[in-house]
Amino acid sequence: MPPAANPGLKILVMNAGSSSQKSALYALPSDAFPAKPLEPLWEGAIDWTHQEGVAELKFTTQDGKKIKQTMPSGDRTAVMNCLLESIWSGETQVIDKATDIGMVGHRVVHGGGQYQESVRVTPEVQAAIADYSRFAPLHNPANLEGITAIEAILGDIPQVAVFDTAFHSTLPPAATVYPIPYPCYEAGIRRYGFHGTSHRYCAQRAAELLGNPSPLRLIVCHLGNGASLSAVRDGVCIDTTMGFTPLEGLMMGTRSGSIDPGILIHLMRQEKFDADRLDRMLNKESGLLGVSGVSSDLRVVMEAIAEGNDQAKLALEVYLHRLRSHIGSLLPSLGGLEAIVFTAGIGENAPDIRAAACKGLEFLGLEIDPEKNVRSPEDIDIATDHSPVRALAIHTQEDWMIVRDCWHLR
Amino acid sequence: MPPAANPGLKILVMNAGSSSQKSALYALPSDAFPAKPLEPLWEGAIDWTHQEGVAELKFTTQDGKKIKQTMPSGDRTAVMNCLLESIWSGETQVIDKATDIGMVGHRVVHGGGQYQESVRVTPEVQAAIADYSRFAPLHNPANLEGITAIEAILGDIPQVAVFDTAFHSTLPPAATVYPIPYPCYEAGIRRYGFHGTSHRYCAQRAAELLGNPSPLRLIVCHLGNGASLSAVRDGVCIDTTMGFTPLEGLMMGTRSGSIDPGILIHLMRQEKFDADRLDRMLNKESGLLGVSGVSSDLRVVMEAIAEGNDQAKLALEVYLHRLRSHIGSLLPSLGGLEAIVFTAGIGENAPDIRAAACKGLEFLGLEIDPEKNVRSPEDIDIATDHSPVRALAIHTQEDWMIVRDCWHLR
Repeated sequence: MPPAANPGLKILVMNAGSSSQKSALYALPSDAFPAKPLEPLWEGAIDWTHQEGVAELKFTTQDGKKIKQTMPSGDRTAVMNCLLESIWSGETQVIDKATDIGMVGHRVVHGGGQYQESVRVTPEVQAAIADYSRFAPLHNPANLEGITAIEAILGDIPQVAVFDTAFHSTLPPAATVYPIPYPCYEAGIRRYGFHGTSHRYCAQRAAELLGNPSPLRLIVCHLGNGASLSAVRDGVCIDTTMGFTPLEGLMMGTRSGSIDPGILIHLMRQEKFDADRLDRMLNKESGLLGVSGVSSDLRVVMEAIAEGNDQAKLALEVYLHRLRSHIGSLLPSLGGLEAIVFTAGIGENAPDIRAAACKGLEFLGLEIDPEKNVRSPEDIDIATDHSPVRALAIHTQEDWMIVRDCWHLR
Repeated sequence: MPPAANPGLKILVMNAGSSSQKSALYALPSDAFPAKPLEPLWEGAIDWTHQEGVAELKFTTQDGKKIKQTMPSGDRTAVMNCLLESIWSGETQVIDKATDIGMVGHRVVHGGGQYQESVRVTPEVQAAIADYSRFAPLHNPANLEGITAIEAILGDIPQVAVFDTAFHSTLPPAATVYPIPYPCYEAGIRRYGFHGTSHRYCAQRAAELLGNPSPLRLIVCHLGNGASLSAVRDGVCIDTTMGFTPLEGLMMGTRSGSIDPGILIHLMRQEKFDADRLDRMLNKESGLLGVSGVSSDLRVVMEAIAEGNDQAKLALEVYLHRLRSHIGSLLPSLGGLEAIVFTAGIGENAPDIRAAACKGLEFLGLEIDPEKNVRSPEDIDIATDHSPVRALAIHTQEDWMIVRDCWHLR
């Protein structure tokens, strides 16, 4: 039976950032949830950084139509309207009318300590997302704006909030509480962790690929422009490297990750840095970009290394040292390791980084098969046959997890 | 031949802090350096924190004489004079005259990137110690004051500077460079590491106790009120947890250790914290004290746990979680482990902490012998006979290392 005859549930996925908006529409069959991720019917993106005062919109449909257009960025609702209307009108039309969309799922960065799983959006949920804006001042307001824009355009449609922090809500107190005065913890300063939807997808997919063994102790390496690790025991997240904010942990494209807090105090005293200056330096001017002086993009750093740039080489060495150290830091909590998982931009596409990261774990017997590693089609085991620890490269599917959560809350 | 007939070299060891001063006098035989640490002839301490405006002095001699006295703290040189005069006059006299002291060795906290080993004090060395005060504003000025006080009192006596940072000068660039803009590194913001004299002593002593095997990969856990780990491969330090300042790394008595740098930015914005407030909170009000709300002293925290205090229990859990994580973080660089070493106040005297720390390393086969662990006289192997990884409790001897460095530079 072709999908047109049994249209099933159309789910719109919204991923609203401070300066961008990615959306995708999925058509699910009405009978059962698909065993494998589907391709979206339609994808749309808004980029507010392209040019001052201008929003750039791009649309793509499953059958290959592509449209790019620009409009004044001043009226955000008008821009959102334009994005959504392309689903049911114009060249990129894929459904008859707006009301054919059955549900909307939103990626929401911060769910505080409150949300341990995805929920239907209610006025209370909206108030909580607004409240947690104090912990995620760039992201939560944008997420909330996405929810209210949908209300304005699509009315009383069921909406679901999928929190980046939810998968990490199972962290034990020892991993959650910072060694600072206890009233800080009571005021909400604790480890939340991020990239939870990606970590959750990869942990589930890894279990599936490995045949659901028990125990299953995983380290999931989400290595993109942002990067974090999670330690997952039998599906339950027990530790993660990002913390109160997405600044902690690994060295990233432009983010420092963890550094001596004394450095901030030193820069405040000696260089008169204020909060904005520290924020900009540690979030935008550090990481691969800061050390290499070349780029936040690992591929560009690698090219510079090939051309003999010593500072780029140093940046890669620091990146790998910190990646290995953080992987090692999760081993005592797990008490052993069945598999390491690589995902996101770098994790999926940089075999050299995977091999170098695993080099630090040879003492566990982990051995990468160089041929499998460079082949790396989606979702493959790249360890040698006799390696007692497996290594997986998995294509992360955050949007598909949002679709799945909507399905379960339909 | 009794020591009186061959007095050999008298070495005075000086450990000057911002609010305390510990000193000890050692009498070495003239022929060869002793195989084992000697007891000091005389020990003296000044405590400036005891009472406002008052310096409290305590002297002890090897044959058991003890004296305590107080004096106005205003004139620091007069207080130092009083401390030193007790060596050659009064009830605690142990030598005939000031000039019987042959050398003075100083613990100096910060040697910057320049000093890879101990050196004879020259005007250039003094200038460097003064220069590095910008990185160690509490300690280096006090260390320098100790050197100039000795010059004033003992004249042109050979003095040696033993740097806390020197043992870590072998760290590779990947472990030294922070993932922040490269000009920060050029300005001296890099990992230095501290407690180097203790780590060096313990690494050498462990090699001796284990019969100098090769490879010898060690993790040395210096766990006192301040605490740091070092990773030592064949005697060479390749990583350490303290960094640019002694605030980074492990949770300590009152220091937080590593936390999300985003927490500092958050507190600056939301609570209007300035550098002094952050410094005080993270160095003086955090760690065991901050989480437990009870004490910075682990023994007192343990007592509170025994009385059912949940916040004290949480503090211990966080302490152990972070200790285990940091131990794990050093494993990939070492590529394996022959032994873990525990030293300093907690490391030498808290068998429960040693056992709990090693629990995170059972996946390496490490097994602690509970009987040996609680017995723990000085310098003992507490692992079971069949454990493939050894575990040592070693009494650290920082003063003795300073004596040894003086001897080599005599």
